[in-house]
Amino acid sequence: MTTVPDEEMFEQPCPIRDVLDRIGNQWSLLILEALAPGTLRFNALMREIGDISKQMLSRTLKQLEQDGFITRTLYPEVPPRVEYTLTPLGRSFLEPMQQLVVWADTHHGAIVAARTRYQALQE
Amino acid sequence: MTTVPDEEMFEQPCPIRDVLDRIGNQWSLLILEALAPGTLRFNALMREIGDISKQMLSRTLKQLEQDGFITRTLYPEVPPRVEYTLTPLGRSFLEPMQQLVVWADTHHGAIVAARTRYQALQE
Repeated sequence: MTTVPDEEMFEQPCPIRDVLDRIGNQWSLLILEALAPGTLRFNALMREIGDISKQMLSRTLKQLEQDGFITRTLYPEVPPRVEYTLTPLGRSFLEPMQQLVVWADTHHGAIVAARTRYQALQE
Repeated sequence: MTTVPDEEMFEQPCPIRDVLDRIGNQWSLLILEALAPGTLRFNALMREIGDISKQMLSRTLKQLEQDGFITRTLYPEVPPRVEYTLTPLGRSFLEPMQQLVVWADTHHGAIVAARTRYQALQE
C-alpha cells in the first residue's frame, strides 16, 4: 500500500509548476489551439479567439514567444505584417494539452458537484 | 490557413482554467501521484512527498477532497486514524496528468533555453 511512487516522474517537481504557471491558462491554450492549423496574423487571432482583449492577446503572445512555443515574424511591408506560427516545441505540446482539455471538459461537472456536496456537509 | 479550430474543444474555456487553478500545482500533483498505488495516512503522505509542510499538505488535501479527487476517512480509534484514497475521478485524472508531467520534464530545458535566447535578443 505504501509503494514509493514513480521517482522518475517527480525527481524535479519544478518543471511542471513552471510550465503550468506560464501556459496553464485559458488564453495560452486558446492561442496554441488557434495556431494548430497554421500561421495567423494578429487580427486573425483576435477573431479566432473572440472575447480576448488586444492587451491580453499581446501579452500572452509575448510569453508564448519567450518560452519558445511560437515564433513572431515581422514583414516590413506597408502596413507592417506580423505573423505567429507554432514552433515544433509548441506543436509537441498540443497533444498532452488536448488530453487535459478533454479531461477537464468531461469531468468539470463532477468536480462542481463534489464541491456542492462538500459545502452541504459543512453546513 | 485560417481554418477554425475544433469548436468542440473550446466551447467553454472555463473548465480547463478552473481545473488547472485548483490542481495545476506541484503539491496537488505530487499528492495524487503518491496516492496512485493505494490509500495512505497523513504521516505516510508527509514521508512520500518529502519537503512539504504540514500546513500545505493539510490545505492541499482539503482542496482535493472538496473537488472530489480524494476521500478522507476518519477511523475513531485511539489515536484517531485518518486515511486518504483516490476516488475514481482522481484516478481518471492520473493519465492526462502524467502525460503532461512527462512533457514538462522532457521539454523544460528547451523552454528555459528559449527564454535565455529571447532575453539575449532584448539586450
